[in-house]
Amino acid sequence: MASLPAEAPIGVFDSGVGGLTVFREIHRALPGESLIYLGDSARVPYGTKSPQTVVRYSLEAANHLMQRGIKMLVVACNTATAAALPTLQETLPIPVIGVVEPGARAAIAKTRGRVGVIATEGTVKSHAYRKAIHTLDPNVEVLECAAPLFVPLAEEGWANTHVAREVAEVYLEPLIDAGVDTLVLGCTHYPILRGTIEKVVGDSMAIVDSAETTAAWVKSIVGDSARGEAEHHFLVTDAEERFRKIAAEFLSRDIESLELVSL
Amino acid sequence: MASLPAEAPIGVFDSGVGGLTVFREIHRALPGESLIYLGDSARVPYGTKSPQTVVRYSLEAANHLMQRGIKMLVVACNTATAAALPTLQETLPIPVIGVVEPGARAAIAKTRGRVGVIATEGTVKSHAYRKAIHTLDPNVEVLECAAPLFVPLAEEGWANTHVAREVAEVYLEPLIDAGVDTLVLGCTHYPILRGTIEKVVGDSMAIVDSAETTAAWVKSIVGDSARGEAEHHFLVTDAEERFRKIAAEFLSRDIESLELVSL
Repeated sequence: MASLPAEAPIGVFDSGVGGLTVFREIHRALPGESLIYLGDSARVPYGTKSPQTVVRYSLEAANHLMQRGIKMLVVACNTATAAALPTLQETLPIPVIGVVEPGARAAIAKTRGRVGVIATEGTVKSHAYRKAIHTLDPNVEVLECAAPLFVPLAEEGWANTHVAREVAEVYLEPLIDAGVDTLVLGCTHYPILRGTIEKVVGDSMAIVDSAETTAAWVKSIVGDSARGEAEHHFLVTDAEERFRKIAAEFLSRDIESLELVSL
Repeated sequence: MASLPAEAPIGVFDSGVGGLTVFREIHRALPGESLIYLGDSARVPYGTKSPQTVVRYSLEAANHLMQRGIKMLVVACNTATAAALPTLQETLPIPVIGVVEPGARAAIAKTRGRVGVIATEGTVKSHAYRKAIHTLDPNVEVLECAAPLFVPLAEEGWANTHVAREVAEVYLEPLIDAGVDTLVLGCTHYPILRGTIEKVVGDSMAIVDSAETTAAWVKSIVGDSARGEAEHHFLVTDAEERFRKIAAEFLSRDIESLELVSL
């Protein structure tokens, strides 16, 4: 494992814009750290693609960020974490963390025994959350449900509409009926619909947003080590104006340094 | 232009499953023709990607189909037609047809003067339909609207739900209010939502599904020339089981010959 130059940036990687929810929390927890965000917008979404393809895309993204001198990689995409985290950890000479284990730890801390996970088709099929939760506590019951329409609803700005509410009811009612007490938002897009999701589940469930717990974990690894001026740089593989627009909504500010790259 | 061996297959290319609506109509019009369908499921959707990226992906798909000995290429994706048709026509030594011009011709034949087009963001931004319609008749008014959520609703099997109906109302009300008399389904996914769309627009608009008119155009080029046993072969770039399931719903039959390829 290489040493971590304190001024080097932390790399944050996602298939598109969803990882910006993680980026936002890392910035909040570590305002002095420089961050480079890479969104693979030319190949988004990852959630419907095969694990083999997601591993290949993730390695290409990680290698690009390594060339930019990152000291640590955060895989801010549940699908990529579920499919590619072990490969990335074996391949890269820097710390690599994903979003599944922090989410699983937070769920264990909150649950009274029955956890629901909503995620993409790819993440659900991998059973990444069930495995991570059962590693920590095999007695917790885990129900995993795909909620694929949440991604386009978030990306298209429909998060707070009546349509989103109705879709949320269809996805969440089986979990409510099953008596789930803690709900993991197992896709980095989903925190954008958190308000709508909370309206549907009411007080019946505690919500786990892995962005916050991932940021806390990042902080525990890098410490408060940053010394220089913090810089934020954004890379996308396609459609930069679309990214700029959506990112401004996610982050509640305009992004300045945006670059189109080819992986 | 090379001659067309009668037994050679026709290639049909789309970013994913939407082009199956065109495939179905070509098969209906020309039951004796062999067809090869290529769905670029590793990089779907194209509708939110830049024209440059869509051109590159389309050329890779077309080159792969050329190696399979196709006698003609049908670009069964509006976004790819809008971005890449001229490049494909210049590059390939076989006839290449898209779905925009057939749709524009059908709209001209039906309209009393005001045409609405619903399509992906990429197709709307290209103004491909407006240009194609105005080439035929500059006096027709053309209103183009993006309807991006229709694609995931179709792909996820929500076409006939109350949610789809509500989304359709949001997208179509401006066109109803504007007095559109003819509506072009400018994305090959949208015919799957035709029933829902018809419920919303009622008798106020004639619907143009470019799959049917494209098939008629293909027939006019190849004639009734096929002699051998017609074969259907499907190629995808990722997630073949997902494709198999959705294709069975689209085509109302199981598909037998499915192959995973890398472009």
